[in-house]
Amino acid sequence: MEELSFALDCNGGDYAPLEIVRGGILAARELGYKVFLVGKGEEIQSILEKSGEAGNPLLDVVDAPDNVDMDEPPSTVLKRKNSSLYVCGKLVREGRAHGLVSAGNTGAVLAVGKFIVGAEEEVERPAIGVALPNPKGKTVLIDVGANVDSKPRHLVQFAIIGHTYAEEILGIKNPRVGLLSIGEEEGKGNELVKETYPLLKQTNLNFVGNAEGRDIYAGTFDVIVCDGFVGNIILKASESLGLAIVQMIKAEIKKSILAKLGAFLLLPALNRFKKKADFTEYGGIPLLGAKKPVIITHGRANAKAIRNAIRVASEFLTHDFNSKLVKNIKELIPQEVRV
Amino acid sequence: MEELSFALDCNGGDYAPLEIVRGGILAARELGYKVFLVGKGEEIQSILEKSGEAGNPLLDVVDAPDNVDMDEPPSTVLKRKNSSLYVCGKLVREGRAHGLVSAGNTGAVLAVGKFIVGAEEEVERPAIGVALPNPKGKTVLIDVGANVDSKPRHLVQFAIIGHTYAEEILGIKNPRVGLLSIGEEEGKGNELVKETYPLLKQTNLNFVGNAEGRDIYAGTFDVIVCDGFVGNIILKASESLGLAIVQMIKAEIKKSILAKLGAFLLLPALNRFKKKADFTEYGGIPLLGAKKPVIITHGRANAKAIRNAIRVASEFLTHDFNSKLVKNIKELIPQEVRV
Repeated sequence: MEELSFALDCNGGDYAPLEIVRGGILAARELGYKVFLVGKGEEIQSILEKSGEAGNPLLDVVDAPDNVDMDEPPSTVLKRKNSSLYVCGKLVREGRAHGLVSAGNTGAVLAVGKFIVGAEEEVERPAIGVALPNPKGKTVLIDVGANVDSKPRHLVQFAIIGHTYAEEILGIKNPRVGLLSIGEEEGKGNELVKETYPLLKQTNLNFVGNAEGRDIYAGTFDVIVCDGFVGNIILKASESLGLAIVQMIKAEIKKSILAKLGAFLLLPALNRFKKKADFTEYGGIPLLGAKKPVIITHGRANAKAIRNAIRVASEFLTHDFNSKLVKNIKELIPQEVRV
Repeated sequence: MEELSFALDCNGGDYAPLEIVRGGILAARELGYKVFLVGKGEEIQSILEKSGEAGNPLLDVVDAPDNVDMDEPPSTVLKRKNSSLYVCGKLVREGRAHGLVSAGNTGAVLAVGKFIVGAEEEVERPAIGVALPNPKGKTVLIDVGANVDSKPRHLVQFAIIGHTYAEEILGIKNPRVGLLSIGEEEGKGNELVKETYPLLKQTNLNFVGNAEGRDIYAGTFDVIVCDGFVGNIILKASESLGLAIVQMIKAEIKKSILAKLGAFLLLPALNRFKKKADFTEYGGIPLLGAKKPVIITHGRANAKAIRNAIRVASEFLTHDFNSKLVKNIKELIPQEVRV
């Protein structure tokens, strides 16, 4: 395989540009990938110099000073040709970079992924899949925000994409696929679910039936399929619930000295748990089904998270994810379900 | 006010009939309410005798041996006139009981609430509201499962119902109402949200705008409105996430003796947190907008939870919730939004 290279958006994220550039440096040093550092050229150059990396041939500075801020409408990115995100997308489209990583405006990253990088052959709508942790392993929830008001045939494709992700990237054989609904039996749910269920039954997936909200963190399914509106809300609600639990427990702990001591003794165990639970530590969330890997990291991403995101992007290439996805779409969806 | 009486479904729930009947006894003893104990007559009578309550005039045994099990289709309840749930509904409809409480098949309780107890005047669709805990207080999420594929005008009514619940039962003045979506700005979301937003703006509610998933447990809104499909999944996912976190932390704690000691010292604080976080301890979830209080408790409800659920049912009556709800629907929704 040719030398891998990635476009890194150095304008996006809470700790841009310093932590982002440092993440790019780590990827070059530790993983050996070429990284296009796209953003405010002079600032990036100065960080490289201070890090003693100004002459590293794996690090290529690309000047693109504009940035789509978190509170700007995401779609404007498509017109802002000097924005770091747009330029990242262009580097990928032109084949100079093999994937892109950004900690910036999520909607803008999605827009670049969908419209500049573009969808893979046979993929109607790329979707975001997240591997959520549970006591037994991980469950892929797909889509968590790339699409709203999906049609049944889109959910069928999400199921194939999630299946391929679980099998090829997470190493889960014959993943159990569920359709997110509000009751187990066929016929339970909203119109979208009721129309999608019989289509999924006709695929060659290991379709187990409807999954409920309680299955998301129970390890009872390997892939759970839903519209991006629902998935995005679940993802954000989960994150906020995690934070709320920690805050509420801390408030109770503060009321007693023994509890404070107990919390101190528990710290290492809690940190191990946190590492397992925090899916952002794994290196970001992929837009699956795009022509090339597009990885969205948390806005709070530090250098290590950025390095991990670049590693994740590379895995999609080394595992030849897209070829397998296209093959699965062709083989697992019978012609009559394709519409 | 006349003596309050409640119909209690003694067939439903994991610990039926013993814990349910005991809950009814507690409600009679401690709260002074009359309770119709509806279920397998002989069994109930025998529990009453063993508890020394056989002659209590506040406890009335009603024989209705049939039960809609958890795995039976909920709607069958409407044809099963000897089921405890159906009989509970009838007691309410006939005015003999002022509300009903059940730990049984949730869908069947909803069916009885919607079709036998019926909707209050002006209420098109009753909805389930849940007061979810957060570090600053509580946020009402509505609807969490009584309705799927809601129309914009239904969401507007849910907003009014949630507002009334927050104000009258939770004591929150001028509650901040949000519409659950996947972005803050107007125009973000699915078709339902986009159509509902301008309607909510026209109401006289304290409508703040779109809420996101992360707002559900952040205390940034007092009422968050959504379709029951989304709300139900969030509720169940949250419960499952809470369990998963506890299990995963326990697994980490088991790896170290110091952590075990720490956990032991933390127990009282954790139990205080658990009590605050476990909304089922508060006494169940109300179907809001039914003609009379209909309270669904957790399947695992014990005697205390049942007593609390009866207390919650009584609060809707002593606070004159329904009159205020009808008044709010008339006053807060302008004629042009009513359709």
